[in-house]
Amino acid sequence: MALRHYTLDVCLSTPVDCDSTVRGLLSIFHEQEMTETVHDTDGHGCLATFVGKKGRVLVLRVHSQGLVTIDLQCYEDDNIVQLDNILNALEKKLKVLLDGNIKRIKRLPPLIRGAEVDRYWPTADGRLIEYDIDRVIYEEDSPYQNIKILHSQQFGNILVLNGDVNLAESDLAYTQAIMGSGKESYAGKEVLILGGGDGGILAEVVKQKPKMVTMKVIDGCKMHMRKTCGNILDNLKGDGYQILVEDCVPVLKKYVQDGKTFDYVINDLTAVPISTQPEEDSTWEFLRLILDLSIKVLRPTGKYFTQGNSVNLTEALNLYEEQLEKLSCPVGFSKEVVCVPSYLELWVFYTVWKK
Amino acid sequence: MALRHYTLDVCLSTPVDCDSTVRGLLSIFHEQEMTETVHDTDGHGCLATFVGKKGRVLVLRVHSQGLVTIDLQCYEDDNIVQLDNILNALEKKLKVLLDGNIKRIKRLPPLIRGAEVDRYWPTADGRLIEYDIDRVIYEEDSPYQNIKILHSQQFGNILVLNGDVNLAESDLAYTQAIMGSGKESYAGKEVLILGGGDGGILAEVVKQKPKMVTMKVIDGCKMHMRKTCGNILDNLKGDGYQILVEDCVPVLKKYVQDGKTFDYVINDLTAVPISTQPEEDSTWEFLRLILDLSIKVLRPTGKYFTQGNSVNLTEALNLYEEQLEKLSCPVGFSKEVVCVPSYLELWVFYTVWKK
Repeated sequence: MALRHYTLDVCLSTPVDCDSTVRGLLSIFHEQEMTETVHDTDGHGCLATFVGKKGRVLVLRVHSQGLVTIDLQCYEDDNIVQLDNILNALEKKLKVLLDGNIKRIKRLPPLIRGAEVDRYWPTADGRLIEYDIDRVIYEEDSPYQNIKILHSQQFGNILVLNGDVNLAESDLAYTQAIMGSGKESYAGKEVLILGGGDGGILAEVVKQKPKMVTMKVIDGCKMHMRKTCGNILDNLKGDGYQILVEDCVPVLKKYVQDGKTFDYVINDLTAVPISTQPEEDSTWEFLRLILDLSIKVLRPTGKYFTQGNSVNLTEALNLYEEQLEKLSCPVGFSKEVVCVPSYLELWVFYTVWKK
Repeated sequence: MALRHYTLDVCLSTPVDCDSTVRGLLSIFHEQEMTETVHDTDGHGCLATFVGKKGRVLVLRVHSQGLVTIDLQCYEDDNIVQLDNILNALEKKLKVLLDGNIKRIKRLPPLIRGAEVDRYWPTADGRLIEYDIDRVIYEEDSPYQNIKILHSQQFGNILVLNGDVNLAESDLAYTQAIMGSGKESYAGKEVLILGGGDGGILAEVVKQKPKMVTMKVIDGCKMHMRKTCGNILDNLKGDGYQILVEDCVPVLKKYVQDGKTFDYVINDLTAVPISTQPEEDSTWEFLRLILDLSIKVLRPTGKYFTQGNSVNLTEALNLYEEQLEKLSCPVGFSKEVVCVPSYLELWVFYTVWKK
């Protein structure tokens, strides 16, 4: 079962008489056989609630400072035309009642609440976003995270990890950005990929005939992200690549110990943490540990690529850049802002090198 | 004045006892000094409304089929930490009360209602989207449309016409797509641009030293979209281009009459109408008129470029393609799906040529 939640807001340029506005709308509610309750708000404008047929509930608030809000909740199978007509009638009447004082009338697409398929996946910078998701392809709780693969009409299958949109089949732009935006040649090179469980990076890198790609990953998306990974995840070892399903920290430490180095290290493990208190947050410590080990296994001419976060999260990005100054080996870096189709926000990618 | 509207929804895998769920939460409301009203819903679950201090209003609905919804409205300057704590307490208590039956708990970023700067601009396919808009740069009602220029932290200034996001300073991808995605050379060519009031297309075309670009436009964005148009709109006539501020239909008719033709016609006037009843909709007639005249002024080897609409609006796109079969001269067409950063949905662009 699901509900539709409609809103209708009228912003005014002057204060408004609350009681007469509510009274002026009553005939519309009565026509709809809605029963009203008028509440005592202790001086915070007028509040009236209405219960109608078929489980319809309407909340009307009139704020004397100059705002009228209406919420109309109904069941998903209710008659949409009837509901639109109620809102149209209310809007029309409010235009008459508040004639000349209206700054803005806003009706949003209805919120769908409690639906089988959840379409609301906020951006990293915390904005409300409704995706065109029509079905759940896969869902599982691994020991590390909640993994969902959701189908979007326009973006194809989308990998969602712990509620964050991670990668969609439309997002070749992500893979290209984290590989250096077409400015690098991987032919004959030794490449280390950390994370990248969707297989997109590996699939693109092997096209360029590298000497050897080593990828460390927890688990794959080989079933449901085929447009992204092709058949590259079907075998753990192939021509020019190997996939190690294990924790990357001990392996990186072993590489450092053995003096093993790479031309490219691509870190696709996680975004820059949003927490702005790095000293209290173990995710920042983990990030710095990986970063430090990765730079250690980088050849002097090598490059380290990673994603940052939403371009709007400037504090988190600044903190990441501060971490770069604290590594055991001095580094330089550059960044690029990229439009990844399914993210619905611009994303920052970093290139880091040894100075 | 503005309100924050928080939601907390709990979806259940089994039916729920409404009364005991409401009763189980009452102590939290009483701690918050909220006064309750329990409503008669005529058998559609439980509905209780609560009025608290500082104008806080909470609506609790428990649907016996297995859904609990909570709406909490407060003024924008209310204490966010306190409100989070109320929602945290309710969520925690619901987890205890509904232990083992919970399929999903969802808290969305709060809706901001009645704010000075409106951040909600739905996509063409009708999805709810919150933009990172922080200020209004410009607003005016022209005889033709409502024109807004809004500032987004990530996309720069955004041109919004009649509530539709039209173009942002981040959207070079739009201009490139409607110019043929880099596959055309405009050097020495004669080009006709219809619309394009933001100046983006003109600015890009003149870089390629065309023979002459003629642009028909109603009014410009030269003040506030400088990153898009540069200084190209400062003069109506320049080296290799002229801007005609007039209605394009009579001018196109005159071109047809005089036998004037172009290598490229770029129609940036409007998107494909969403209405799926073309016979009843004059916008479709207008579109077909412009299209027919445009194809008439196209040289045999010429190309006509235009935007379509959201990739999800398949019916509207199909109708457009049907129009293409009804022109006075037979045409072929191809289409491309492009990610325009500020649109937050994939967009279809068309190339049309004479057969």
